[in-house]
Amino acid sequence: MRTVDVDARAAKATAILDAAARCFAERGFAATRTADICALAGMSSGNLFHYFPTKHAVLLALVERDGAETNASMAELAQADDPFGALLVLLDEICRLAGDPLYSGLALEISAVAHRDEEVAARFKANDIAFRGGLAALVRRADAAGQLSTTLSAEHAATWLAALVDGMFARVAADPEFDAPAQAAVLRRVVAQLLGGVVA
Amino acid sequence: MRTVDVDARAAKATAILDAAARCFAERGFAATRTADICALAGMSSGNLFHYFPTKHAVLLALVERDGAETNASMAELAQADDPFGALLVLLDEICRLAGDPLYSGLALEISAVAHRDEEVAARFKANDIAFRGGLAALVRRADAAGQLSTTLSAEHAATWLAALVDGMFARVAADPEFDAPAQAAVLRRVVAQLLGGVVA
Repeated sequence: MRTVDVDARAAKATAILDAAARCFAERGFAATRTADICALAGMSSGNLFHYFPTKHAVLLALVERDGAETNASMAELAQADDPFGALLVLLDEICRLAGDPLYSGLALEISAVAHRDEEVAARFKANDIAFRGGLAALVRRADAAGQLSTTLSAEHAATWLAALVDGMFARVAADPEFDAPAQAAVLRRVVAQLLGGVVA
Repeated sequence: MRTVDVDARAAKATAILDAAARCFAERGFAATRTADICALAGMSSGNLFHYFPTKHAVLLALVERDGAETNASMAELAQADDPFGALLVLLDEICRLAGDPLYSGLALEISAVAHRDEEVAARFKANDIAFRGGLAALVRRADAAGQLSTTLSAEHAATWLAALVDGMFARVAADPEFDAPAQAAVLRRVVAQLLGGVVA
């Protein structure tokens, strides 16, 4: 039953990625051993190498998975009847993710590693370009629908939206008292003012 | 002549810090050897250890120096007759610094190292608290002078200003086309809208 084999293999790879995400977020990429990942994934040490050649390959796969998930969300939002509303909902969701220690911990670890690792940096930048492209498309549609009033180009607006998202994650890292989900209303307001949009 | 000795010693320590800042910004903390720092500072290998016990101590001293410089700037701005104008000038200056590869490279390297180094993180967070305290003081004075119209508390406003500054630096890291100094006018506008202030 080849399909079952393929499904089982994919499920194991997913279990490894989920376990690695938690290890990298909590103790960092450098301090994580592949044996730690295997233990958390409930498989014997060394089993990981049937799925990924190195710990580094696991990290790259996590960056790629994050990019694929973001692209899927952006593609769904791109269909929304109310594009500015969809943008605000996306920002709410990002505030929620920034408040999740597992998600923000992994995102910050990936940023830190990307700072000195060219392969990670290249995939991280590709995700960033795709994310900004999706934001710009939403802004363009919202503008075409008469929902915005801004002199910024869609690309320039997307850059500022990305800066605001980055700023949220940086605040999570710098300030233990920063409660990202509680900031969603202020972020909505900042974005509405930036784009001359109306918050429903 | 003890004073001359003390001055000469301080000048050497400063030369080491300047050289280390460039090395850490360009090749990273981990990849920099103390011999690299000495070579760039024009002193013989090992001379550094008369001034700093370890490479790590050099990094901590750089974080402290950055904090002291920020505090000095904030203290000067705190005297300004036009506090909201002073805040906007500060943001212009930060955009300029974000566009300086040496400054932004070091800032991003320190953030990355702080992510997994408790001592660096503790000083980095102390600097951040002092920076936000200075921002909050400026906001409070601007509000008292009738220059603002915002429902945010001074501390909450300072947190958002810090998020915007962090976001600028994150964009520099993520996007090689992001020109921070060219964004100063947009940053002024975002901040004016956030605080209900008027840009002169």
